[in-house]
Amino acid sequence: MTDAFDKCRLPQEIEALRASGVYPYYLPVEERLQYGEVVMDGRRVLMAGSNDYLALSNDPRVKAAGADALRRLGAGNSGSRVLNGTLTLHHTLEGELADFLGHEAAMVVSTGYQANLALAPLFGPRDLLLADRHIHASLIEAARLGQAKLRRYRHNDTAHLGRLLETAEPGGGRLILTEGMFSVTGDLCDLPGIADLADRHGARVIVDSAHDVGLLGPRGSGAAEHHGRQSAVDVQTVTFSKCFGTLGGAVAAPRQVIDYLRHSARAALFSASLPAACAAAALTALHIIRTEPERRRRVLASAGRLRTGLSALGFDVPAHGMPTVPLQIGDGLLCCRFWTELFQEGILANAMLPPSVPEGRALIRLSVTAAHTDAHVDRLLEAVAAVAGRLGLPARTPGGPAARRSRRTDA
Amino acid sequence: MTDAFDKCRLPQEIEALRASGVYPYYLPVEERLQYGEVVMDGRRVLMAGSNDYLALSNDPRVKAAGADALRRLGAGNSGSRVLNGTLTLHHTLEGELADFLGHEAAMVVSTGYQANLALAPLFGPRDLLLADRHIHASLIEAARLGQAKLRRYRHNDTAHLGRLLETAEPGGGRLILTEGMFSVTGDLCDLPGIADLADRHGARVIVDSAHDVGLLGPRGSGAAEHHGRQSAVDVQTVTFSKCFGTLGGAVAAPRQVIDYLRHSARAALFSASLPAACAAAALTALHIIRTEPERRRRVLASAGRLRTGLSALGFDVPAHGMPTVPLQIGDGLLCCRFWTELFQEGILANAMLPPSVPEGRALIRLSVTAAHTDAHVDRLLEAVAAVAGRLGLPARTPGGPAARRSRRTDA
Repeated sequence: MTDAFDKCRLPQEIEALRASGVYPYYLPVEERLQYGEVVMDGRRVLMAGSNDYLALSNDPRVKAAGADALRRLGAGNSGSRVLNGTLTLHHTLEGELADFLGHEAAMVVSTGYQANLALAPLFGPRDLLLADRHIHASLIEAARLGQAKLRRYRHNDTAHLGRLLETAEPGGGRLILTEGMFSVTGDLCDLPGIADLADRHGARVIVDSAHDVGLLGPRGSGAAEHHGRQSAVDVQTVTFSKCFGTLGGAVAAPRQVIDYLRHSARAALFSASLPAACAAAALTALHIIRTEPERRRRVLASAGRLRTGLSALGFDVPAHGMPTVPLQIGDGLLCCRFWTELFQEGILANAMLPPSVPEGRALIRLSVTAAHTDAHVDRLLEAVAAVAGRLGLPARTPGGPAARRSRRTDA
Repeated sequence: MTDAFDKCRLPQEIEALRASGVYPYYLPVEERLQYGEVVMDGRRVLMAGSNDYLALSNDPRVKAAGADALRRLGAGNSGSRVLNGTLTLHHTLEGELADFLGHEAAMVVSTGYQANLALAPLFGPRDLLLADRHIHASLIEAARLGQAKLRRYRHNDTAHLGRLLETAEPGGGRLILTEGMFSVTGDLCDLPGIADLADRHGARVIVDSAHDVGLLGPRGSGAAEHHGRQSAVDVQTVTFSKCFGTLGGAVAAPRQVIDYLRHSARAALFSASLPAACAAAALTALHIIRTEPERRRRVLASAGRLRTGLSALGFDVPAHGMPTVPLQIGDGLLCCRFWTELFQEGILANAMLPPSVPEGRALIRLSVTAAHTDAHVDRLLEAVAAVAGRLGLPARTPGGPAARRSRRTDA
């Protein structure tokens, strides 16, 4: 008889990383210091792999709001939103979020992952769902749990998207699914192009703003505001684990859509509600996002400094100016060697290997936050320069093997 | 052109509830009082619809641990476990949980819902997955995201399960999926029967202990310990939103399985990690579960008092003695009328309608916690008696239409 656990083996690539001593995952943070630094492996490390773009997770006001709510309302709500786990605080947060995002209503759920899963009931059996090839795993899961026919369009390629829209059958709905700012590479979706196509084809547009809400747009409401096309977005999902500095997520949409999801989205109906500590932290973070635009300016300035410095080192980094910057490496083992040497230099980055990125496109993801000073960015650049020099990397990068492979994958 | 939002209509049943003024969902808790009471709709209400069985969500030690961790480590971790969101605290919690549950290893994720979703990679394309018909929605989602052939066996019917096991194809694995204590009806799975079948057929047994961990067994490790069959359970999932009083969840299993899931479970890889406040609250709750068995005894005593009282009122309640007690009503509208009148009597119960229960089997779910005194249980019984009297219910229940329908559905 076959044992169902026979499949429980690690991929060879992961075993190879472990054997080589360059395994870059699950390393614990032992302590948190001010200014984007942490203690890991007993050493002081600059955190350059976090999504805490506005540095609100460690903000004294956010933490005080969380701690106060925890004391008043308990460590958890012991039930789902629908039955016994809704707090007045959830309603307040939903109202303020909807207003901030420019939608009629919002539904708060317990993780950003589940906010995306909660979209599944929008994907009906006769619908055509067109999704950017680079969307987040949680959106793919939502598509798999939904019933629509899923087709993927080439990353940010509206010509391709347009051709796929032509294939929609009459009688079914059309939905376009994209991220606002893409999580791994930091580039923005082509919302103007998508919006025009959606208009022409009567398609609904769903934007996952996990990485851009709080960061982009004059008021900070995300990529759509940045593009001046807020009214083109029918449904927006957000997470509280990036700019909001805590845990949780939400779907914002017309009231009719939210009311429908409240009674059909299994990721909302069948999961315990967001604890008061997280909801209060998110609400306070929202107030700070609304009133302190200088935090956005601060992190975008650091992103610019990082980009300029990496370019000067010979890296072919994208020009988007976002706080998430990919260093294309290509080979997975080399990427993890880069990660390991960076860590030895006192920098925590993210090593992104398949399936998070396409095969052969391993990359180091660097990110800066509002907690980082110019001195931090310079320290980061020095470390990258030292490691790249030892591994002989930057000279190869512009137009080199990694870059060529990168273009081929997307073509 | 068809609008993809045309589908966003509420089921007629929900519209009917709203029209009748007996809509029982999403009512917010405004304030939390001691002893299992809350403020809702401006009034003091006895919470009899919570899964906070050990009353730890409001325990001062649990709350202090959460608030302290929040201050030290921040309101969130701004990244997934794999890349930058792991805390030493997560490792500590995983080690203590594995030890407590009697498994080699454990993996902590951000919700109980996602702990179940994280099982999906265990369900391979050649496997046969046999699941109890009453398992939780999150386990169904896991099965849908996995690749195994899913078949459902009649609730707790090991004869049926045995026949389905015979249909397994050689060369594929076999997995049995059940809850330890079923969430809606409070009954326990027939683990001895399942374990014997699993032995005979070389099947792996997965038990969702969401509702029984902390509550059952001499040490409180769950239904398997209660049955004296801990070694028969290969994988156990738990949530922190019931007995642990906060948010989060975990999978416990052999080390090889956990290591595999850490590198393949998308609900773990692609979601922000559990905030320090929740992880610290869960760890403190675990310490209390291990050292204060009197809390289990207290809630089970209240459950017994509730059961005896409901029987005396003429209700056909199950004999299992668990803190979750279903009052079978049958008709959905009548069930919501019952719920509304109970609420007017100052009791918050759960109205369980399809799809949470089979069609025609609407029920009121009552639950007691360690915060409830005998006086609370008596007040609950008085309210049930008053409402049932007004609606003419208990006399019909034993052997009445609801009970007959119930038996037919399961046959």
